[in-house]
Amino acid sequence: MRGTVLYGPRDVRFEERDAPKIIEPTDAVIRIAATCVCGSDLWPYRGLQPINGPTPMGHEYCGFVEEVGSAVKSVKPGQFVVGSFATSDNTCPHCQYGYQSSCMHREFMTRAQAPLLRVPLADGTLVSTPSVPSDDLVPSLLTTSDVLGTGWFAADAANVKPGSTVAVVGDGAVGLLGILSAKQMGAARIIAMSRHDKRQKLAREFGATDIVTERGENGVARIKDLTNGIGADSVLECVGTQESMMQAINSTRPGGYVGYVGVPHGVALNGEQLFFAHVHLHGGPAPVRRYLPELIKLVWDRKINPGKVFDMALPLDQVAEAYRAMDERRAVKTLLRP
Amino acid sequence: MRGTVLYGPRDVRFEERDAPKIIEPTDAVIRIAATCVCGSDLWPYRGLQPINGPTPMGHEYCGFVEEVGSAVKSVKPGQFVVGSFATSDNTCPHCQYGYQSSCMHREFMTRAQAPLLRVPLADGTLVSTPSVPSDDLVPSLLTTSDVLGTGWFAADAANVKPGSTVAVVGDGAVGLLGILSAKQMGAARIIAMSRHDKRQKLAREFGATDIVTERGENGVARIKDLTNGIGADSVLECVGTQESMMQAINSTRPGGYVGYVGVPHGVALNGEQLFFAHVHLHGGPAPVRRYLPELIKLVWDRKINPGKVFDMALPLDQVAEAYRAMDERRAVKTLLRP
Repeated sequence: MRGTVLYGPRDVRFEERDAPKIIEPTDAVIRIAATCVCGSDLWPYRGLQPINGPTPMGHEYCGFVEEVGSAVKSVKPGQFVVGSFATSDNTCPHCQYGYQSSCMHREFMTRAQAPLLRVPLADGTLVSTPSVPSDDLVPSLLTTSDVLGTGWFAADAANVKPGSTVAVVGDGAVGLLGILSAKQMGAARIIAMSRHDKRQKLAREFGATDIVTERGENGVARIKDLTNGIGADSVLECVGTQESMMQAINSTRPGGYVGYVGVPHGVALNGEQLFFAHVHLHGGPAPVRRYLPELIKLVWDRKINPGKVFDMALPLDQVAEAYRAMDERRAVKTLLRP
Repeated sequence: MRGTVLYGPRDVRFEERDAPKIIEPTDAVIRIAATCVCGSDLWPYRGLQPINGPTPMGHEYCGFVEEVGSAVKSVKPGQFVVGSFATSDNTCPHCQYGYQSSCMHREFMTRAQAPLLRVPLADGTLVSTPSVPSDDLVPSLLTTSDVLGTGWFAADAANVKPGSTVAVVGDGAVGLLGILSAKQMGAARIIAMSRHDKRQKLAREFGATDIVTERGENGVARIKDLTNGIGADSVLECVGTQESMMQAINSTRPGGYVGYVGVPHGVALNGEQLFFAHVHLHGGPAPVRRYLPELIKLVWDRKINPGKVFDMALPLDQVAEAYRAMDERRAVKTLLRP
């Protein structure tokens, strides 16, 4: 089998690797129907996050169960499944509180940009679809594995409610699906912060009512203008830089909510500034497993079409081009099929 | 009239000042029945927060309305009132959302360690008691002005609910009243972090079920031990240092809540660490005005006795000794009567 390995900055190779096997009785091996490149993959790809030697890549996945370990009860060979980018037993206290991505037995998935994938803790990580999906549903189902689940968590963490005024910082795939999520949750107004025509268009399609092209302090000033000087009720931070985080915090009204899901890189929050901002702050790795049944159902029932974030599709063996296209912002997100 | 002025580190003077007068039609002047020294007064007292020349001190107060401006409608001379340490019009959008301490017309009170006090925005800042209180209620009523309101906000921001497991970082008056607040909100277990016998005793009296004397990483480890490795549902941060903030965050379970009310001094939160801690974070200046009616009623009905935090009482002209006693931790909190 060939799979994706990152060797260093901008050096992605699709090369021969051992095919995965069942190791623990709680494992499953799945045959990937579709996978993709995540915004967070770009941090190490760009050399902004150190890697420790050649690193197998990929953590978004859906596909057919190929084989299960002897202890696996909830999924069986032949079923179509989606799993979270973080494994979970779904029984520990953190899981029971709905924070499966902080499961006491969590592992972060990797190696999903390959035709076959071992998924540990299969019972607590994977969710099967009602039956084998039609092919056009596969991209949307794939999004539930991370990018939609993460946008959904951003909106949930930002306490989006019917009638809320929402701002979204970041026009990557997570930000765009944060807009879709806020819309689903009943937001009355959704302000997308974006300066890219194509992404603005998708933002509006997903439910954005306003577009702000300014960034930093000017972006904050625009949000204030648009909200009668008050600030937004809920702000989704979907980037992970110091600037985007401060843009999010400062765009929120006192007592409002910031949901942050961009993995912070070099972010330091000044305690006093945060104190007087008076906002609620919640975020972290999205507990995708909590949302999977609901999100799969929304996709299955064709209530949402999050797969639209894939504006490029390539055969898996062209994964290096998928990284390049996203790095250069030629693509919002690239779908990969084995 | 004489009032309290801070001249520099550990240099508090009670000296002649002009008596306050009505300036704006929305002002009231009140005759102080009791005031006190706040933990936050100790930051400039200790020289840890710069002051800009001689600074009148004091922001906790209750007393009798002496005079009101022509626009004041809700209080009148002779009434006994309590007000927040932050003024508010109680009508702006932030106030309507319950964040009166971020009112668009907020001023932070000062000059309350004096016999007479001008209170701007009297209608939106002051709340009157049902009638003139008996003298023994005055200390508890005074606490609602800040220290109880702040402990209450810490518990509220930390989402304390019936049955919650709560930890409280800080055994000053705010931390102790955070314990009382958590108890009122129905917490099942309240772990006080304190290494002072006298404060531990008061903590237990207010509702603490466990005492942890360790600090920093060892303190976190103890909280984990006491909660089967899970962490607390709700942690109240009532100090404001880097160590106390990290102690609070790391003692909280993933998905749990940190309510922080200690004014942060030199605190910087690492974005990545916060992200993976997976906690909810909320805090800031307590919106005391939101809680005043409820807290005054609890005191009035003698359901709570927060005035017990005053373990020293002095005549107002001995205010310098009040600061010294708190600085040296000889007193938890000192009541001052003109």
